[in-house]
Amino acid sequence: MKAFVYNGPGLKALEERPKPALQAAGDAIVKMVKTTICGTDLHILKGDVPTCTAGRILGHEGVGVIDSVGAGVSTFRAGDRVLISCISSCGKCGYCRRGMYSHCATGGWILGNTIDGTQAEYVRTPHADTSLYPIPDGADEEALVMLSDILPTGFECGVLNGKVAPGSSVAIVGSGPIGLAALLTAQFYSPSQIIMIDLDDNRLAVAKRFGATATVNSADGSAAQQVMAFTGGRGVDTAIEAVGIPATFTLCEDIVGPGGTIANVGVHGSKVDLHLERLWSHNVTITTRLVDTVSIPMLLKTVQSKRIDAAQLITHRFGFDQILEAYDTFGKAADTKALKVIIEA
Amino acid sequence: MKAFVYNGPGLKALEERPKPALQAAGDAIVKMVKTTICGTDLHILKGDVPTCTAGRILGHEGVGVIDSVGAGVSTFRAGDRVLISCISSCGKCGYCRRGMYSHCATGGWILGNTIDGTQAEYVRTPHADTSLYPIPDGADEEALVMLSDILPTGFECGVLNGKVAPGSSVAIVGSGPIGLAALLTAQFYSPSQIIMIDLDDNRLAVAKRFGATATVNSADGSAAQQVMAFTGGRGVDTAIEAVGIPATFTLCEDIVGPGGTIANVGVHGSKVDLHLERLWSHNVTITTRLVDTVSIPMLLKTVQSKRIDAAQLITHRFGFDQILEAYDTFGKAADTKALKVIIEA
Amino acid sequence: MKAFVYNGPGLKALEERPKPALQAAGDAIVKMVKTTICGTDLHILKGDVPTCTAGRILGHEGVGVIDSVGAGVSTFRAGDRVLISCISSCGKCGYCRRGMYSHCATGGWILGNTIDGTQAEYVRTPHADTSLYPIPDGADEEALVMLSDILPTGFECGVLNGKVAPGSSVAIVGSGPIGLAALLTAQFYSPSQIIMIDLDDNRLAVAKRFGATATVNSADGSAAQQVMAFTGGRGVDTAIEAVGIPATFTLCEDIVGPGGTIANVGVHGSKVDLHLERLWSHNVTITTRLVDTVSIPMLLKTVQSKRIDAAQLITHRFGFDQILEAYDTFGKAADTKALKVIIEA
Amino acid sequence: MKAFVYNGPGLKALEERPKPALQAAGDAIVKMVKTTICGTDLHILKGDVPTCTAGRILGHEGVGVIDSVGAGVSTFRAGDRVLISCISSCGKCGYCRRGMYSHCATGGWILGNTIDGTQAEYVRTPHADTSLYPIPDGADEEALVMLSDILPTGFECGVLNGKVAPGSSVAIVGSGPIGLAALLTAQFYSPSQIIMIDLDDNRLAVAKRFGATATVNSADGSAAQQVMAFTGGRGVDTAIEAVGIPATFTLCEDIVGPGGTIANVGVHGSKVDLHLERLWSHNVTITTRLVDTVSIPMLLKTVQSKRIDAAQLITHRFGFDQILEAYDTFGKAADTKALKVIIEA
Repeated sequence: MKAFVYNGPGLKALEERPKPALQAAGDAIVKMVKTTICGTDLHILKGDVPTCTAGRILGHEGVGVIDSVGAGVSTFRAGDRVLISCISSCGKCGYCRRGMYSHCATGGWILGNTIDGTQAEYVRTPHADTSLYPIPDGADEEALVMLSDILPTGFECGVLNGKVAPGSSVAIVGSGPIGLAALLTAQFYSPSQIIMIDLDDNRLAVAKRFGATATVNSADGSAAQQVMAFTGGRGVDTAIEAVGIPATFTLCEDIVGPGGTIANVGVHGSKVDLHLERLWSHNVTITTRLVDTVSIPMLLKTVQSKRIDAAQLITHRFGFDQILEAYDTFGKAADTKALKVIIEA
Repeated sequence: MKAFVYNGPGLKALEERPKPALQAAGDAIVKMVKTTICGTDLHILKGDVPTCTAGRILGHEGVGVIDSVGAGVSTFRAGDRVLISCISSCGKCGYCRRGMYSHCATGGWILGNTIDGTQAEYVRTPHADTSLYPIPDGADEEALVMLSDILPTGFECGVLNGKVAPGSSVAIVGSGPIGLAALLTAQFYSPSQIIMIDLDDNRLAVAKRFGATATVNSADGSAAQQVMAFTGGRGVDTAIEAVGIPATFTLCEDIVGPGGTIANVGVHGSKVDLHLERLWSHNVTITTRLVDTVSIPMLLKTVQSKRIDAAQLITHRFGFDQILEAYDTFGKAADTKALKVIIEA
Repeated sequence: MKAFVYNGPGLKALEERPKPALQAAGDAIVKMVKTTICGTDLHILKGDVPTCTAGRILGHEGVGVIDSVGAGVSTFRAGDRVLISCISSCGKCGYCRRGMYSHCATGGWILGNTIDGTQAEYVRTPHADTSLYPIPDGADEEALVMLSDILPTGFECGVLNGKVAPGSSVAIVGSGPIGLAALLTAQFYSPSQIIMIDLDDNRLAVAKRFGATATVNSADGSAAQQVMAFTGGRGVDTAIEAVGIPATFTLCEDIVGPGGTIANVGVHGSKVDLHLERLWSHNVTITTRLVDTVSIPMLLKTVQSKRIDAAQLITHRFGFDQILEAYDTFGKAADTKALKVIIEA
Repeated sequence: MKAFVYNGPGLKALEERPKPALQAAGDAIVKMVKTTICGTDLHILKGDVPTCTAGRILGHEGVGVIDSVGAGVSTFRAGDRVLISCISSCGKCGYCRRGMYSHCATGGWILGNTIDGTQAEYVRTPHADTSLYPIPDGADEEALVMLSDILPTGFECGVLNGKVAPGSSVAIVGSGPIGLAALLTAQFYSPSQIIMIDLDDNRLAVAKRFGATATVNSADGSAAQQVMAFTGGRGVDTAIEAVGIPATFTLCEDIVGPGGTIANVGVHGSKVDLHLERLWSHNVTITTRLVDTVSIPMLLKTVQSKRIDAAQLITHRFGFDQILEAYDTFGKAADTKALKVIIEA
């Protein structure tokens, strides 16, 4: 089969690989229908993710059709159309029983990281019963690809952890795909203000279209001041960090109001300064989270009932043979204005 | 001044009364600008509310202008435009400190009940600092009248107590003003289904316009069956009782799913049957609540940011001299299609 | 093997049965070490539980040793010592993923009800990975039998649902084994008052020994009045119903304070009166629950760290051959003063 | 009257001052009965608290007797015995209505900071109705001094924010008075492990006596390793920072397990490193809080019902004339083994 392979820092290739086989009783083999590329895949290609070694088929998102299942799989059978969670969850360990699938003792984020992933014609998915989700008849499968990772991430790590609430004020630092996913799902809770902050005017324009009540270009260093002005000097109830660098985390510290929450979504490569000399008395909460994808069933309902239009995150479409071009388009998002790209089998 | 007075069961009159005077340090005298009529006022007129005795000026809703304040009032001064909560809250007692203003040791629902109310040219409001709310410049004051009682009631007793959540299923039994207030505020949380149930097709049509995803006329006795069909046989996550009679409460018991919640909003005059022989093992929650109006500040934000259109509950407008006609219109809602009526000073 | 069998209303026998065999990939066969008798078993014997048909081996509690496991079981192997939950949970269905194991699509309370149970030399346990719990080395296995059902039931249905909190007031109606389990686990949260109510002075004396701050014999009809006196006329924050008849539920309605919770634990055979004509405005919460046993891992930690002495619920011990005598002792608790009886293999 | 006065960095004196007078309608004048010294007072004396200027009477804790009240005070009158909260709360502003008294628009921590405090014969307390608490008859007033600040601080900032729960694991970094207050109040929730960490073996011995399940002297740099060993390599559910320096906060980052919480209690003078490059994916929560003292009524109940022995925090007693000696004893705690010192009028 064809597969997109990471061959070490800076090296990627579309290669021919053998079709995967069932290894454990809980496995399923899924024939991929649609997949996509995540910002994390770009990090891997740069060599920033040490757990992912050369030779790995990338990809942890997508929808497909069950090809075969192991003896222990009771929920799915060949021919079922399924949504693949980016997080594999055994459903049995202490973490899974508490809903913290991201830390599953034998799962977590393994697809396209420590085992081969979804950017291929077929993928082996461990713990299939508890890591795949049935696709309702008539669903827009392209939109559902957004439920493998990006929407649950924006929602769980940003919106839920950030305790977004009716009438509250929210600032989202970073208007890339993940910040926009937080923006879309924040609206589930009807905050009165959602301020999007970014350096890219195009992405801020997209944010406005997606429901931001205000946008701030942070290029001139006045972002904190502007957010304070928007909130009557109080600061926001929820600041969502959706970039992953020290400067944007510091901005969140500057704009969160007393009693507020900083919900970190960004993947950070270095430590940040936590200004406890100021914040110790501000009754703030700071959260981190690797997405658990516990919200996939709920998100499915909101997509099906049209409470959210997940498809608007998709800007480009490619055939699987064009995956290198898809990576190129996604990697140069500032130029191509790409958000999420769909790759079809 | 002119005042609408309850003179005992079945007896009402527009009378001349002395302008009220400050009695306690925390009092304010408010010149009324707009008020409205509540279903509870109709109950009082029928003699169903024993705490409200003959001679009482009715009314517990409205907006006005501060005329004068007592020595202990620090938040307001003459000329301030204010929204009046139907619940007076001292802010000091144990219940108030827990946010349960409805049970305030020296307040609660007293306006137009145990002390004179808002259906008059002036009203004395005790505990003014913690029972009145400043009206933002440029606000639609007519819409804000909906925040004195009906919207907080639908929201707190129905939506908050009912734990309405993104993607969840909600049924609201009763599509009168209070059920519609629950319908409007339930949408703050983006449930995937909101099923409205009533006997009146006009009110169901209004519900559809206000955002119901489905409507059920319960006249033929098949309401429970229909709700079950809408929810794949599971029953709803939240059933909101917004009528106040045994039959509608029983319907809620019939349609709530395992793990679900029945949030009672209706004012009941008699006991109901609780079918514990079936429900003991269904992991359900049943809640009751007299509105606390703790949500008024939040609701103000959602009205100001246009997350909710409160004004659409208003169907009729009257001058204060026409208040008897206003009662007539409101009392014959099935014919007049009245929801909330505004009475202007 | 020997097994205790329900042979229809009023008919019970110690019989010889074949050792159970594995049926599904997720099954385990457990050699029983210790089991016990539940009040529900007495209900079955009277013919009150229609799902349990003649010929059924009873019992849904106990500890044992793994004899063999199916191909899909990954957590346990032969020789492991395990605690058996009274609730079988697949870990995969929507209810299990939400922690509501009691409503598992293919599990729930099935042991000793719809499939053969633990009052035998061997038992087949479905969904073994997610329905059995490893016993720590050196644990008091007799005490752990209390974790199969009674302690999780008192804790989840009574204490957790009842929102017992530091400094709060609690009344528990019924001082039988389940009420006492609620009493023991309520102390995890350091309420300032725990008032036990029963008709049996012996059981009230036990309650006092187990940590009740006050006891009330309800025989003379003054129980509500006494509870009101203990709480300065306010009523309790939490009323736990641990009997299952209309009169005791009504007592809970009479003693719960504004803002309080009635947590139903009792198994009811008929409807009860819910006095909404009084309670509609009292901001109360009423909960029901079939135990989910999600708290077993937590309870294991509290037993191991000696935060709770579970063994004190055990009053009698029998060999398996004496199980008819054990039933007799447990069934005549008023005379024998039995709480929980241990039956050893 | 006599008063203890801060006269600028390093300068303190017992001085004669005029008795304070009522200034606002909500004020009370309280004749002090017992007060104490807080670690924060030592910070002020060093000049570390810029809001507190020379000439200020220190002290924000204590019990006393109402001498006189302003016209707006309705809860108290002369002769009432009261507990003084370290936080003044108006009960009216947005923060107070949300229970965040520490950020009261006209209150917060002002006593002994921006207005004269309790280390004097009399003190003026603003917002008396909502900042003083009636002392029950027969209460141990000395023990109640611990409820002005230290117990609510340990409880709210450490235990509540840290989500201590039955069966959970807790580590408290710092075994001074505030860490010990967290230790005492953590036991309200029956965690299975409470590990106390300090450099001072005497304080660790006290911790053991107060209920710690394990103690760790962190002098040799192996504290993190030891905590990991105590928790099977998983880290703790709750890490409470009760010192206020970068090294102890870093230790909390090292020992908190996935899904756990770091509850900061310490007053920090400089920023700390937040290791998001590791923690971004650990699903952790970090909280800060200036005590709100919302828990005082609850703590009163637990003291009265003997669920907690607050008096054991008291090691020394002085007359008011000995207050300089009291400061000396408290300031040299390592030598004097002082925890809290009581100063009697």
